[in-house]
Amino acid sequence: MATLWLLDDVPSPTQDSETLRKAVQGFGTDEEAIILTLGRRNASQRREIREKYQQLYKEHLIDRLYSELSGDFRKAVMLWTYDPPERDAILANETLRARRKGPKELQVIVEIACASSPHHLMAVRQAYCSRFDGSIEEDIASLVPLPLKKILVGLVSSFRYDKELVNADVANSEAEILHNAIKMKQLDNDDLVYVLSTRSFSQIRATFKSYEQRFGNHIHEDIKASGNGTLESLLGVVIWCIDTPEKHFAEVIRTSILGLGTDEDSLTRAIVTRAEIDLKKVRAEYLKMYKSSLDNDVTGDTSGDYRRFLMTLLGSKR
Amino acid sequence: MATLWLLDDVPSPTQDSETLRKAVQGFGTDEEAIILTLGRRNASQRREIREKYQQLYKEHLIDRLYSELSGDFRKAVMLWTYDPPERDAILANETLRARRKGPKELQVIVEIACASSPHHLMAVRQAYCSRFDGSIEEDIASLVPLPLKKILVGLVSSFRYDKELVNADVANSEAEILHNAIKMKQLDNDDLVYVLSTRSFSQIRATFKSYEQRFGNHIHEDIKASGNGTLESLLGVVIWCIDTPEKHFAEVIRTSILGLGTDEDSLTRAIVTRAEIDLKKVRAEYLKMYKSSLDNDVTGDTSGDYRRFLMTLLGSKR
Repeated sequence: MATLWLLDDVPSPTQDSETLRKAVQGFGTDEEAIILTLGRRNASQRREIREKYQQLYKEHLIDRLYSELSGDFRKAVMLWTYDPPERDAILANETLRARRKGPKELQVIVEIACASSPHHLMAVRQAYCSRFDGSIEEDIASLVPLPLKKILVGLVSSFRYDKELVNADVANSEAEILHNAIKMKQLDNDDLVYVLSTRSFSQIRATFKSYEQRFGNHIHEDIKASGNGTLESLLGVVIWCIDTPEKHFAEVIRTSILGLGTDEDSLTRAIVTRAEIDLKKVRAEYLKMYKSSLDNDVTGDTSGDYRRFLMTLLGSKR
Repeated sequence: MATLWLLDDVPSPTQDSETLRKAVQGFGTDEEAIILTLGRRNASQRREIREKYQQLYKEHLIDRLYSELSGDFRKAVMLWTYDPPERDAILANETLRARRKGPKELQVIVEIACASSPHHLMAVRQAYCSRFDGSIEEDIASLVPLPLKKILVGLVSSFRYDKELVNADVANSEAEILHNAIKMKQLDNDDLVYVLSTRSFSQIRATFKSYEQRFGNHIHEDIKASGNGTLESLLGVVIWCIDTPEKHFAEVIRTSILGLGTDEDSLTRAIVTRAEIDLKKVRAEYLKMYKSSLDNDVTGDTSGDYRRFLMTLLGSKR
C-alpha cells in the first residue's frame, strides 16, 4: 500500500550516484534530477546509493544535500534520504529537544512506537543511542513531564510479540480494564499503560473490538469524550496509531493543511514516513474522512520543488 | 575475567561433532567426552558445533543431549549448549511460568536485565518472542504481581545507552531522588523506577557513588535496611547486578550451597551464565565475602558428572 512509484528498470547505484553528483556540482543545483532519482527509490535502494556515493566521492550524500538545498524541500529530501531508523531517531530527538512538548509535538514518538513494526522501533532505539548521548527512553523520562512521560516511556520501550495470535479471554478482560480506567478518568493508570505498551498489536486490536462490542463506543470516542487534557489527546493518537494508523496520518495531513499557513514539518513527516508503508490507505481514508482529495489538497497548499517532491512520493508520474 | 579454559589448538566443528556423536551413540553415553568437548568451547564455538552437528546428523544436538543425559548434569549441559540469548529466554520463561514467583525466583530476570549488556538483553527479548507465545514484558505484566512487576517491566524493557559517559549533575540529583524514595519507603516510586530502568549502567554507578558520598551509606545497605519485604529484596538484587554483579553471583552460589541440600538450579545458573563473563571476579569476591574457596565449596557440595562439568566451566584443567 505504498504510494512510491518504483521503476521497473532501475539504474545502478553507481549511475544514480553519478546523476546526483552532476545535480549538486557546478553553478546551481538540478533539483529535478534529485527529486526523480531519490524520490523513486525504496529504502534499500537509497541505502545503496548513499553508500556508493560516499565511496565514489568521499563525501556524505546527506551532507551535500544539506549544503545544496534549502527550506522545506531540503528538510523533506534529507529525511527521505536517511535510513528510516536513523530518520526516526532524528525526528524523536528533535521533538525531545524542543522547548514545546505538548501532545501535538509528541505524537511523532507515538507514531514511531505504535505505527511501526517492533523491529523498526528497536532499530530506531539503536540508531538513537548511536547518534545521541543517551537512550530515547532516558531522554523521555528526563525531558517530558508526567503524565505524558509515563505513557511514552512504556510505548517506546516495548518489543512486542509480532505474530497474529489473539487470546479472546485476554481481549475481554483487558477491554474491561481499559473501560474502568476511562470511566474513572484514570488515563495513566498502571494497568492501562501495561495493556497498551506490552501487548501485541493484534491482541490490542482484538481488545478494542471487544471494547466496542461490550461498551457500545469505539474506545477512541470514549477517550476523546473523557476530557480534553493533554493525556486524552495523546492517548487518542495511541489508539489510532495502533488500530488504524491511516486515520491518524490522514488527520495529521489534514491538520497541517487547514487554516492559515501550512505546518510543513508535519506534512513532510506524514508523507515521508508513510510513503513506503501505507500512504495509499491514508489517501483513501482522507477521502472518506474529509470528502476531499489528499493529492489535490497537498498540491494546493505547497509549491515549487517541495510540492514536486511530495507529489513524487505520492506516486505522481507526471 | 572468564574462567572458561579454551584450548589453543581447538578441533574443527566437524571433529567436535564427530566426538559428540560417538559419545551419544551406542550403549551408554560418554559423559566425559561431552564435558571436555562442550565445556571448553566458547559461545561462538558452541554455535558452530550445534550447526555442524545438525548438518551432519540431521538431529538437534540439544535434543540428543536431552535424551541421553539426566538430572542436574543434563540441565547444566543443555543450558550451556543453547545460544546464550535463547538460554536466558528459557530461564526467564521457566521462572514466569512457575507457580512461586518471589524475589528469589525473579532474580534471574534482574540478572538478564541488569547484569548483561543492552544488546544481550535485546537478543534475549527477540529469542523470547520467537520461542514463546508472547513478549517477556507482556508475560511479566500479566503474571507477576505488583509492585514487583512495575520494577521488572521497566528493567527488561530498557535499551540502555552503552557508552562510558557520565553526567555528574544528573548523578547528584538522581542520588537525591533515590534517597528520598528510600527515606519515604516508596521503593516503587515512578522516579526511582525511571532512574534504575532508563539510565546507562555507567551513569547509575556514578549515581550510586554520589549517593554514598552524600548520604554516608551504600544505597544497597539503605535499601536492605528500609524493610524486609519482597520489594527491598528484589531491589537489593537490582543494585548489585548493576553495581557489582560479582557480589550478587557470589551470594547466589553461597546461598545455593549453604544449609541442607543444594539448590542446583541456582548453582548451575550462576556458573553457566557467568563462566564466559566474570566468573573469575565472582570467585575473588566469594573468597573476600565468605573467606572460603568457591571451587572447594562447589566440589564439596556436588558430585559425579555434574561436579566435573561445573569444575570444567570453572576452568579446572584436571
